[in-house]
Amino acid sequence: MSNPSLLILPGDGIGPEVMAQVMRIIDWYGAKRGLKFDVSEDLVGGCAYDKHGTPLHDDTMAKAQEVDAVLLGAVGGPKYDKLDFSVKPERGLLRLRKEMDLYANLRPAQCFDALADFSSLKKDVVAGLDIMIVRELTSGVYFGEPRGIFKEGNERVGINTQRYTESEIARVARSAFELARKRNNKVCSMEKANVMESGILWRDVVTEVHEAEYKDVELSHMYADAGAMQLTRWPKQFDVIVTDNLFGDLLSDLAAMLTGSLGMLPSASLGAPMENGRPKALYEPVHGSAPDIAGQGKANPIACVLSFAMALRYSFDKGAEAERLESAVNAVLAKGIRTADLLNAEGVTPVSTSQMGDAILAEL
Amino acid sequence: MSNPSLLILPGDGIGPEVMAQVMRIIDWYGAKRGLKFDVSEDLVGGCAYDKHGTPLHDDTMAKAQEVDAVLLGAVGGPKYDKLDFSVKPERGLLRLRKEMDLYANLRPAQCFDALADFSSLKKDVVAGLDIMIVRELTSGVYFGEPRGIFKEGNERVGINTQRYTESEIARVARSAFELARKRNNKVCSMEKANVMESGILWRDVVTEVHEAEYKDVELSHMYADAGAMQLTRWPKQFDVIVTDNLFGDLLSDLAAMLTGSLGMLPSASLGAPMENGRPKALYEPVHGSAPDIAGQGKANPIACVLSFAMALRYSFDKGAEAERLESAVNAVLAKGIRTADLLNAEGVTPVSTSQMGDAILAEL
Ligand SMILES: CC(C)[C@H](C(=O)O)[C@@H](O)C(=O)O
Ligand SMILES: CC(C)[C@H](C(=O)O)[C@@H](O)C(=O)O
Repeated sequence: MSNPSLLILPGDGIGPEVMAQVMRIIDWYGAKRGLKFDVSEDLVGGCAYDKHGTPLHDDTMAKAQEVDAVLLGAVGGPKYDKLDFSVKPERGLLRLRKEMDLYANLRPAQCFDALADFSSLKKDVVAGLDIMIVRELTSGVYFGEPRGIFKEGNERVGINTQRYTESEIARVARSAFELARKRNNKVCSMEKANVMESGILWRDVVTEVHEAEYKDVELSHMYADAGAMQLTRWPKQFDVIVTDNLFGDLLSDLAAMLTGSLGMLPSASLGAPMENGRPKALYEPVHGSAPDIAGQGKANPIACVLSFAMALRYSFDKGAEAERLESAVNAVLAKGIRTADLLNAEGVTPVSTSQMGDAILAEL
Repeated sequence: MSNPSLLILPGDGIGPEVMAQVMRIIDWYGAKRGLKFDVSEDLVGGCAYDKHGTPLHDDTMAKAQEVDAVLLGAVGGPKYDKLDFSVKPERGLLRLRKEMDLYANLRPAQCFDALADFSSLKKDVVAGLDIMIVRELTSGVYFGEPRGIFKEGNERVGINTQRYTESEIARVARSAFELARKRNNKVCSMEKANVMESGILWRDVVTEVHEAEYKDVELSHMYADAGAMQLTRWPKQFDVIVTDNLFGDLLSDLAAMLTGSLGMLPSASLGAPMENGRPKALYEPVHGSAPDIAGQGKANPIACVLSFAMALRYSFDKGAEAERLESAVNAVLAKGIRTADLLNAEGVTPVSTSQMGDAILAEL
């Protein structure tokens, strides 16, 4: 049997720096745990545009469809701000999500004990926080047609379309209910059914799937604005949250920031099972390309490292190996080893990106 | 000269309770400050549906168009959850906003000194916080066509349309820049120009208005997801935030919750000037109808009281009288007088809605 395959797309900004540490960890798993991967590397985002004039070359897209899992760093940067919409770095990422049909974006928002003090929220509000946001990732206003900027009389008009089909809602709802069963058995679904018909359909379909298949899971509904409030007020009331692409974008970033550990948070984007039974999958940190600190060796590689841990768990069914890696990260944090983003006190010297990699490898 | 006219729409849930205290304050201004208003009262939301089968009767709509300002309590409640979309309580409110063309929704998020401890955020993050969110209120996905739930093959599809014209964006941008000039001269505009063309137009038009008319104001742009994060991390970086209807809904609720004082926050929704020079205007608390505590005399009337203060300022050019009322509220809080929502310690007895009204009147 051949080794499972990984496509590495470091991307822009701090992407290559943090991914370099993950590569070391992948090598460690091959050498020390007999978990060998066939690794290939390619371009996405601004760097792909620089080379090919497109943020995702067709060959890269084809490779992504063939491998067992894609690991992505980050895309974007001010250099590309003036580019036409159709070739912006983000379009590369969005194309991967859409063409691989990665409909379930899993974004855990977890507060690491050693970092609870670092949140802007009070310690008792966030200590021990562990919620999972399941964001729909292939539809909604991100992809709906018609879209564009049109001329009407002598005015420009900007148009986007929020569009959800019943089956698109049902499949991501199932992902959320399945996850809840392995956690605390609670799902909260968020939309704006009070002002949007697409939100009414969302609420109805989630309710129908629940009634028919997941009556053992506790289901509640909340308007997305109330959701933003409740996440801020008392986030521990939630277990799994399921929501659409746009609300999920804002709410998962909000939830990530609650933990105070943005540089710590991984994500998995999963699609339907392939022939070998593994889901189509892309793993990436929640943080962006952080152009302001790129190339300085300051970036925190942990979110990207933990994204690889998610790959071990969700793509390769190696839950115990994922936990090994997560424990190593926790142990490093417990020792007070910190990159610059995790320091709020003056006078403490941060470690560099690669020193953080060293520390995790030493723990492993 | 006749007295300025006010239309009072107490609405549902705690709406009537909190509005009753405002009526007492309106009377006080008439008796003690020579500020007499012609006050009429009518129905909106679920109570209007109960009586007329519509959440806003045409006669009420016509009255709202004629008066100098509308004061609204809150709409909605579980009793109306199963109603058809077209007659839900919220439609009454949305119709008022749309037909009065109240395009600029001003939502101050202010942290009251006496309440800084009450936030879920750390005291240094929120103490002294004073930001103003200007939310576009008459367009975007709230009103765009086509919209609805349609049948496609044997599937239902939910559709809404985000739609902004150049002039809709320009006028609300102007409102934000004007406000900034009276504050700390900074505007941050939020959209998702990286994934939505309507966001690109938003960013372009805000930039054009800035270049042409408000170069003295400092302008920045942020993606709305990053905005949610930054509001959570360090909200004091902002002065005025301008954003669209849907992002504004989430972000202003988030900002309100940061202050820990949701029951304290008023809002103003302003349109174009009428013949008498006053803007079309509706004032309402940011909080909802809170059906769980309705009718129990527990609700905090302060948000509604401060909405009337905003009316004094923005509709009647009585800034000093508005400050008088705001100072009275501050003085009451400084004395430790609290409704139940403002208590986090056990063993302290909260005051009732009307006792809070008494206290504010005593201060005045
Ligand atoms: C980079 C951008 C296109 C993307 C999104 O909006 O989905 C990002 O914010 C995210 O959440 O992964
Ligand atoms: C009640 C509802 C229609 C409304 C909205 O979504 O605008 C509310 O959330 C608000 O923010 O005023």
